[in-house]
Amino acid sequence: MQSGRKQPRAGKLVELALGELALLKQIRARAAQLSHGAAHGGLRLGIGDDCALLRVGAGEELAVTTDLSISGRHFRPEWQTPESIGHRTLARGLSDLAAMGARPVAAFLSLGLPKELVQNAKGREPWPGKKNWFDRFLDGFFALASAFQTPLAGGDLAESPTAVADVILVGAVRRGKALLRSGARAGDLLYVTGTLGGAAAGLARLAQLAANARAARPDSKRIAPLRIPGNLQSLLASHFYPQPRIAQGLWLAQRGLASAAIDLSDGLSTDLAHLCEESGVAAEVDAAALPVHSSASLEQALHGGEDYELLFTAPPAARVPRSIAGVPVTRIGRILRPVKRKPPVTLVTADGTHALNSQGWEHFS
Amino acid sequence: MQSGRKQPRAGKLVELALGELALLKQIRARAAQLSHGAAHGGLRLGIGDDCALLRVGAGEELAVTTDLSISGRHFRPEWQTPESIGHRTLARGLSDLAAMGARPVAAFLSLGLPKELVQNAKGREPWPGKKNWFDRFLDGFFALASAFQTPLAGGDLAESPTAVADVILVGAVRRGKALLRSGARAGDLLYVTGTLGGAAAGLARLAQLAANARAARPDSKRIAPLRIPGNLQSLLASHFYPQPRIAQGLWLAQRGLASAAIDLSDGLSTDLAHLCEESGVAAEVDAAALPVHSSASLEQALHGGEDYELLFTAPPAARVPRSIAGVPVTRIGRILRPVKRKPPVTLVTADGTHALNSQGWEHFS
Repeated sequence: MQSGRKQPRAGKLVELALGELALLKQIRARAAQLSHGAAHGGLRLGIGDDCALLRVGAGEELAVTTDLSISGRHFRPEWQTPESIGHRTLARGLSDLAAMGARPVAAFLSLGLPKELVQNAKGREPWPGKKNWFDRFLDGFFALASAFQTPLAGGDLAESPTAVADVILVGAVRRGKALLRSGARAGDLLYVTGTLGGAAAGLARLAQLAANARAARPDSKRIAPLRIPGNLQSLLASHFYPQPRIAQGLWLAQRGLASAAIDLSDGLSTDLAHLCEESGVAAEVDAAALPVHSSASLEQALHGGEDYELLFTAPPAARVPRSIAGVPVTRIGRILRPVKRKPPVTLVTADGTHALNSQGWEHFS
Repeated sequence: MQSGRKQPRAGKLVELALGELALLKQIRARAAQLSHGAAHGGLRLGIGDDCALLRVGAGEELAVTTDLSISGRHFRPEWQTPESIGHRTLARGLSDLAAMGARPVAAFLSLGLPKELVQNAKGREPWPGKKNWFDRFLDGFFALASAFQTPLAGGDLAESPTAVADVILVGAVRRGKALLRSGARAGDLLYVTGTLGGAAAGLARLAQLAANARAARPDSKRIAPLRIPGNLQSLLASHFYPQPRIAQGLWLAQRGLASAAIDLSDGLSTDLAHLCEESGVAAEVDAAALPVHSSASLEQALHGGEDYELLFTAPPAARVPRSIAGVPVTRIGRILRPVKRKPPVTLVTADGTHALNSQGWEHFS
């Protein structure tokens, strides 16, 4: 029906196709393998009915999040491997659960894909090999799902001119223990897990490789996967395979140590502004204290997205350790009372205090 | 970043935009209006944090479903009003809850939209008026959400070359009482709510109008909304504004009357085949008994999608009423033991018994 090439049969707009059914069966078989023994986690009924059924403990509430990824916007099929895109799609959702201090119960995946991504590409460009793009996307998705014991409980699948993937995560958290964005108070201290700017540094390197490849073949219109030199693999790991901080979020929620939390998906400057707005506070970041990734600039650490670390606040009396579940924790600033007509987020450097504004594109405007 | 027109800033693939933030605020304000007083239903924390928080009763389990709608495939911006597309997006998800016998707790909505659909279209074609397409889509979505007391608890929003809408519904159902596809047994009787084929008949009429409009202006490439004659509005209502059978599903689940259920989204022939496969049974449909919509053909009643009625089975001893919550219920056939090498679903007409095969397109093949 795309591009008006096909006409619908009389009386049928939504079409269920045998090709899609075969793909759904493939997903279902892989999901069943993964969820074997996952019933104790809360999944009672997975793929195959009108809805999945989940059950959580009487003392728990549900945390639910959705993250929409769109080709050309959130991922680049020509820059990233299908496995990395599958991993990152799920990581976005798991990171939201981590920021609430929730344990994963189940994931759902809605996929809209162009035909060529689900065709067997044996020997054919741009993704040669026995597996097609879709198979390899699922490899990346299920590898991360398995590592975080997150069964795939359902979803949807359709043909689409633009590749889109919407991931839905359902988690469980003890009632009243969820980490909210709104709990920060003046006087609290500001912490971050891991290092910052690594994903942005990796992406900048990828953009450079892509520009070089275009310059080498200026007339080629073909979208071909970039060849990534072996010595770049470790730098690119934090871009290709970010690790959601589930264990760290759970640790903080269980101990009631953090007053507020958010995950760093859009970058420190943007996400800290969200936290301040929801809490009705201001914040000051100490540039010298930032745990900048060894390959990243200060700029990338401040504004680069997709690190998927946790940013959290805690009262001064809280005993926040230097690492949680093997990941370093760094104090990077403090929460202040908001002052009218002053920027809510400021950066303190050797030469003074500066406004730290969210940096991002202006879409839809 | 679409179409390669923009390059990402160094180190930033995901971009959060002020334009999007403004749209998100608009959705949040409308959602807050709607969910006012909805906390008793289970929504504890809505839009504005990393996740929404939901709470259900100790004796309940969660039903979760996702439905992906893609422009040109599941909806047609030039055939359907934005309000109808918003309504139908949500109706797909609510209908899945109905088929489980679940009450709605919260909805989530992930939207990917081309820029022109969120711009103010005052005085501009193709959707002139004070409201843009996005506003009117939300009008339709929230009107149905309000009618079914379903708060919008979260979602995502991004620019996309293709308009896509993924709706996620979370419902609650008493433990062990959910209506499954897998519970039908040989000897059970087969029932359907409402009438069949109305949505398909409406769509066929729309396709005809569109063909006439194209014939009248063969050279025009502009996508313009169809003008629908006033006398067609009531015929088209079941296509434009299908009603999810939430009350009927709840009624069946609470009384434990139905042995299995599914909603008719893909058409009777396809959905009955799903039910038979999940239950490991066969089924026989009596053509003369079918409640065919007054404007529909038998073909449309058998294969037309999107009626969103409930198809369910019940043991012969069950006292199934002739109507549930104001909607007629009709006995249309019975469940049989499966026989190897015989079609699982058959249709009995005046001239004998025929195989009733799923009809649909072969996508991805």
